[in-house]
Amino acid sequence: MKKNILIGLSGGPSTAINASMAGVIRAASASSRFNTVYGALHGIAGVLSRDIIDLSPYSSEEKLRLLIQTPAMALGSCRKKLTAADWPAIEQVFQDYDIGVFFYIGGNDSMDTVLQLDRYFKENGSGVQVIGVPKTIDNDLPVTDHTPGFGSSAKYLYHTMHEIIRDSEIYPIKNVVVVEIMGRNSGWLTLAAGLEHFMGGVYPQIVAIPEIPFDEFGFLNQVKELLKTEHTVICAVSEGIRNHNGDYVGMETKSGAVDTFGHTYLSGVGKYLELQIAEKIGCKVRSIELNVMQRCSAHLASKTDLDEAVQIGEAAVSAAEAGATGIMMVIERTSNHPYAVRIAQTDVSNVANLAKDVPECWHDLSDQSVRDEIKQYLLPLMQGELEPIRDKTGLPVFLDIRGIHSTRE
Amino acid sequence: MKKNILIGLSGGPSTAINASMAGVIRAASASSRFNTVYGALHGIAGVLSRDIIDLSPYSSEEKLRLLIQTPAMALGSCRKKLTAADWPAIEQVFQDYDIGVFFYIGGNDSMDTVLQLDRYFKENGSGVQVIGVPKTIDNDLPVTDHTPGFGSSAKYLYHTMHEIIRDSEIYPIKNVVVVEIMGRNSGWLTLAAGLEHFMGGVYPQIVAIPEIPFDEFGFLNQVKELLKTEHTVICAVSEGIRNHNGDYVGMETKSGAVDTFGHTYLSGVGKYLELQIAEKIGCKVRSIELNVMQRCSAHLASKTDLDEAVQIGEAAVSAAEAGATGIMMVIERTSNHPYAVRIAQTDVSNVANLAKDVPECWHDLSDQSVRDEIKQYLLPLMQGELEPIRDKTGLPVFLDIRGIHSTRE
Repeated sequence: MKKNILIGLSGGPSTAINASMAGVIRAASASSRFNTVYGALHGIAGVLSRDIIDLSPYSSEEKLRLLIQTPAMALGSCRKKLTAADWPAIEQVFQDYDIGVFFYIGGNDSMDTVLQLDRYFKENGSGVQVIGVPKTIDNDLPVTDHTPGFGSSAKYLYHTMHEIIRDSEIYPIKNVVVVEIMGRNSGWLTLAAGLEHFMGGVYPQIVAIPEIPFDEFGFLNQVKELLKTEHTVICAVSEGIRNHNGDYVGMETKSGAVDTFGHTYLSGVGKYLELQIAEKIGCKVRSIELNVMQRCSAHLASKTDLDEAVQIGEAAVSAAEAGATGIMMVIERTSNHPYAVRIAQTDVSNVANLAKDVPECWHDLSDQSVRDEIKQYLLPLMQGELEPIRDKTGLPVFLDIRGIHSTRE
Repeated sequence: MKKNILIGLSGGPSTAINASMAGVIRAASASSRFNTVYGALHGIAGVLSRDIIDLSPYSSEEKLRLLIQTPAMALGSCRKKLTAADWPAIEQVFQDYDIGVFFYIGGNDSMDTVLQLDRYFKENGSGVQVIGVPKTIDNDLPVTDHTPGFGSSAKYLYHTMHEIIRDSEIYPIKNVVVVEIMGRNSGWLTLAAGLEHFMGGVYPQIVAIPEIPFDEFGFLNQVKELLKTEHTVICAVSEGIRNHNGDYVGMETKSGAVDTFGHTYLSGVGKYLELQIAEKIGCKVRSIELNVMQRCSAHLASKTDLDEAVQIGEAAVSAAEAGATGIMMVIERTSNHPYAVRIAQTDVSNVANLAKDVPECWHDLSDQSVRDEIKQYLLPLMQGELEPIRDKTGLPVFLDIRGIHSTRE
């Protein structure tokens, strides 16, 4: 009995999530085991509200190529945390749509949804398979060597820091630049922003990640010390840096709003440090928030990242064909020279609600061997350029599934 | 008698200013009329302090290609406003270095330096030629059709807005995004950020430029009205928008600092409007400041822009060979289909301290014929991709003239 499949996207956007979706659509459309490929608008929330569309019109290679180069989330997203009360309703929707496999593309929180649904379906014998496909620019999912979306964001951060550095040192006056980078709990992205320094460059002289307690007094002293010999001091600072008590730095100036998963909403540690430097040191200082650009800059996507994102989506379909459920697909790095990976899988309980921090053995960022390891880890993920599909105006075009955009021209 | 030449860079950085410098170095090195090509570090300030270096080591095609793809200002910059007291000192330096022509690459303020020096040298018969080469991402220099640097920034803004739009509409909740764009007095860059809308796209629904008085009450009402039918409202707002009294919007929340040219330092109108929307409308709202990225993103440079920047530098040397002085080079657009330009020159008094606003006949941004004209104007300037020179790590490299950067690897 051929069944249908359903894809949902969840959590924050990235440059690669649509590529993973394209991989699932491509492989599922080609498979003899499945009928219609459906998509849920706005993730699991859209399943519950039955906002489900047929993705067949998007299964041609032409459309898939366009989808791969489109950033953010073509089906929209949600941040809904499931409760047991939702399970039977979801089961009913899956039954009505004759869904055999549900693919959920997301991060730590989304894998909790995969875990809950898989357990429920196993317990009540409904036979629906649930498969997680990882994505997060934060790169903080356990088991997998890295996460689709991270490589493109890392590439954006390296390039942008490289350019900000040049922009920052044009005047012969003392100045400090604080660049704030995403990463609520983990410093992977901030390491990418610091890569130029780890590779032997002068800047950014200071790299601060959440895993290492942030000593504000020590930071200001370090800036002051550096300014004695250098005109420009550049700091790459994670939005999630915390002091020795575990409190977010500059907490008092932040909104304090909490999202639906209980995470404190962060913004403005860059601005906070800018004001501290202006007050305590008194030199020219600028803060730069790389904001959503670091997660949606498709024009600077890593081809390696997008290729892997497609592969992991395709491999998820193969795993489904083999009967897997309650798993998340992972990337295993098998070699660095030359860089090579294979796609594998792990029980989703190894991932759901868990996080992978920058390892403690990397915390001494001044150690040359640590710097070399960071470089070995990051560089392959950032390689390869995309040749964007452009319209007759020469500008890149994205795929519109939800009809929210009117089309240019 | 062969003379030497001197190049100085001034004002804010751009992606194309080094390309113009490369054009001057290339043409002057090839010319039989000139000896050594010198560069002044930090513009006219470096002339006064005799921070002058021989640029011969950078005249090979290999180095020039690297210089062309390097953003910001390879010789550093200054924001010094000359006074009559500086003229004799500068003349003395030029005499000591046997300078026949001084090329000054910069914007409105820098052209004032060109004007002052040219008048002084003419009056006292020193025979030094002074030639202005235009650059400013703001595109607000008179006479020239557009300014080198603007096309690359416009391209960055179009691409980034295109991506921010996708990032902004993933959740099924009402939300507003305010994107703040550079342009102290002119809205050219903000028009580029609005281009997707002018070309028939939904977003950004609101485009606010300094040339059109900003009615804050009307703006909030417009946002409220749009939210009745749309989930996402995106606004492209110039940093320099002013109310009907001519006061900068959100003035009270800004620093009020004034730069050496008397311009009020601007930042934060995006943040100001974010807070207003949060307070008065109460929906989810985010502000994004595109900050220095919009002026230094070499990875997204327009090839057309960089090619023209090189040409205008080369043409400045030809003009010098022909004996010109007290001029600024300009770009004349001779055709749109196909796009074609020729490099010409204008008396620098037509440019110095003057600004070119977005014309009044373009102020009705809802008029389709205006939108078409904006599109015709902008699109050709943004065309063409650069193939960056990369090192063995696959990452792009920039040219370092001042020895401030240590080299990676």
